[in-house]
Amino acid sequence: MGSLASERTVVGWAARDATGHLSPYTYTVRKTGPEDVVVKVLYCGICHTDIHQAKNHLGASKYPMVPGHEVVGEVVEVGPEVSKHRVGDVVGVGVIVGCCRECRPCKANVEQYCNKRIWSYNDVYTDGQPTQGGFASTMVVDQKFVVPIPAGLAPEQAAPLLCAGVTVYSPLKHFGLTAPGLRGGILGLGGVGHMGVKVAKAMGHHVTVISSSSRKRAEAMDELGADAYLVSSDAEAMAAAADSLDYIIDTVPVHHPLEPYLALLRLDGKHVLLGVVGEPLSFVAPMVMLGRKAVTGSFIGSVDETAELLRFCVDKGLTSQIEVVKMGYVNEALERLERNDVRYRFVVDRSFSCPRCVGRVRWIGLQMVDA
Amino acid sequence: MGSLASERTVVGWAARDATGHLSPYTYTVRKTGPEDVVVKVLYCGICHTDIHQAKNHLGASKYPMVPGHEVVGEVVEVGPEVSKHRVGDVVGVGVIVGCCRECRPCKANVEQYCNKRIWSYNDVYTDGQPTQGGFASTMVVDQKFVVPIPAGLAPEQAAPLLCAGVTVYSPLKHFGLTAPGLRGGILGLGGVGHMGVKVAKAMGHHVTVISSSSRKRAEAMDELGADAYLVSSDAEAMAAAADSLDYIIDTVPVHHPLEPYLALLRLDGKHVLLGVVGEPLSFVAPMVMLGRKAVTGSFIGSVDETAELLRFCVDKGLTSQIEVVKMGYVNEALERLERNDVRYRFVVDRSFSCPRCVGRVRWIGLQMVDA
Repeated sequence: MGSLASERTVVGWAARDATGHLSPYTYTVRKTGPEDVVVKVLYCGICHTDIHQAKNHLGASKYPMVPGHEVVGEVVEVGPEVSKHRVGDVVGVGVIVGCCRECRPCKANVEQYCNKRIWSYNDVYTDGQPTQGGFASTMVVDQKFVVPIPAGLAPEQAAPLLCAGVTVYSPLKHFGLTAPGLRGGILGLGGVGHMGVKVAKAMGHHVTVISSSSRKRAEAMDELGADAYLVSSDAEAMAAAADSLDYIIDTVPVHHPLEPYLALLRLDGKHVLLGVVGEPLSFVAPMVMLGRKAVTGSFIGSVDETAELLRFCVDKGLTSQIEVVKMGYVNEALERLERNDVRYRFVVDRSFSCPRCVGRVRWIGLQMVDA
Repeated sequence: MGSLASERTVVGWAARDATGHLSPYTYTVRKTGPEDVVVKVLYCGICHTDIHQAKNHLGASKYPMVPGHEVVGEVVEVGPEVSKHRVGDVVGVGVIVGCCRECRPCKANVEQYCNKRIWSYNDVYTDGQPTQGGFASTMVVDQKFVVPIPAGLAPEQAAPLLCAGVTVYSPLKHFGLTAPGLRGGILGLGGVGHMGVKVAKAMGHHVTVISSSSRKRAEAMDELGADAYLVSSDAEAMAAAADSLDYIIDTVPVHHPLEPYLALLRLDGKHVLLGVVGEPLSFVAPMVMLGRKAVTGSFIGSVDETAELLRFCVDKGLTSQIEVVKMGYVNEALERLERNDVRYRFVVDRSFSCPRCVGRVRWIGLQMVDA
């Protein structure tokens, strides 16, 4: 077991190369520093970015790599200067575990925009060691980047809020799009898009899901509670919806035209890009000038915004729609996610443990392996 | 002479075809309606849009067309229900002379975004007659679209404020970019760009002029008072300026890349498109996501914003840099404007008149012709 005096050996599931296949991997995490929180991982959501990183789609992957950045766990130890969290607290860790604390974004408490931010995994921490993510038994994280999970929110429900959830909540909050009665569009109905529908509905918005086909109409309207469904290839319906939306949350991670959607926005409408697209997106200037529209974007959210979203979800009774799987299923889950075969987020459950063996065994899926 | 009971014969300078050549043209304007203001034109600025319209660059020109939408004149008659203006007042008329008054933009007093807005010229008024602009002796305009020119502002100075000036003032105001100490970039140093430098400096901003060559460095720094000058092809200087600007006012009316300029913006920076560009502009999504930047645009400004800008200019002692020419010089002025040979705005002076003949002669350039 770890202590303030020693490094801690943990077991995670790591990709070893660009195949992205995860397998058990034993490594050490740092000694618990004065401001560190040691988190026993209970649940970890699977984000599309995990695929990009594990498979080196962005060209900067280092192996072995333990992905996972929607982490919910229990505090099992804290450093002597930790004031935010106590042993036994249920907490969350998101995409970022470090920042410079001195730049303008850091001083404005939007550390996700710090140019020296440190990612939860596939990055190098201040001690020179690689960071490893939440598909693991344990993480050691500076208290600043640990967020309390409030009572009333199931831990597995909280996991997707830490990335997908705050990714939609942050721009709605920042761009002043929280008033009831606003009309929003959600483009793309994956992990982030489904949170978009739920968060926007909880804010009291009229929500239109916009999709390339009518395939998801029933689930958008009946299961997620969207108010309208618009098929982007239906020219008549698109024309009828022109000049009607205050914002569009664009979660589409591949190249797509912007102009058909800009036409849906009304005066001062905002098109918020959330999906990383490699190829340039384009539009003609009058499409934004005539109506003072904006093509903008947003990137996850801050720790403060995450805490705010978690309380918002408790207040509104908002739940995410997830499929909970065991750790050993992670590779199949990644494959299914890659072909969009999940409604809407996988959450890996690491919480099952044998009371007799706790801390002395490691798990490979449902199969116990001696540690 | 006109009266409430009769149409009024006026002389303007009209384009007759897509050559865009202007020549004297006699036509009638409507009887003075209850809310109409009859304006004797004193000065009228020349905007680049006048070239596009006169030469049918946008494909919707109707002839004969009297251009001109930066109009300063004297009220010579008012309808019985006019409350905003009195005979003898010096007033301005800008780009728009009508709107629906019922849509969301109209109700928000940003009538420039009304889909039924009526242009000062090359449009059709509510009475079915063509609108004609300010290169004319007289305009008849609904009081809503007539703005008082405050004492302390020379009429010829006011002319460029009615389009070029409010085009830069409106987005700075709307997007919350008025606080002293902000760092702004002005891309393109023409009629609108030079107003951008002057308005931004008057707000107390640190202003960087960004240009494709160093040709305008001295005039930008010494004559207009810019704080810095950045040549966009100087990779080293551009890299040094990365992440430093709160906004860029982009007045470039031809295709250009956006990414080099987006890189100059810091957190929450805004790239404001003011130039109508036919070809699509493009950028990759992470350029706006990482830094929550926005590519947005704005279109002239409202009557209210115009009035506000005029008071602002008086308060700040802000003057535009203009070259005043006589009406007969308009074709040469249009040619010179087309090759950017003006510092920075032509204003046509129609105010010279022979005291003996007033109202009984018309002018062709400096040559008097019997009416």
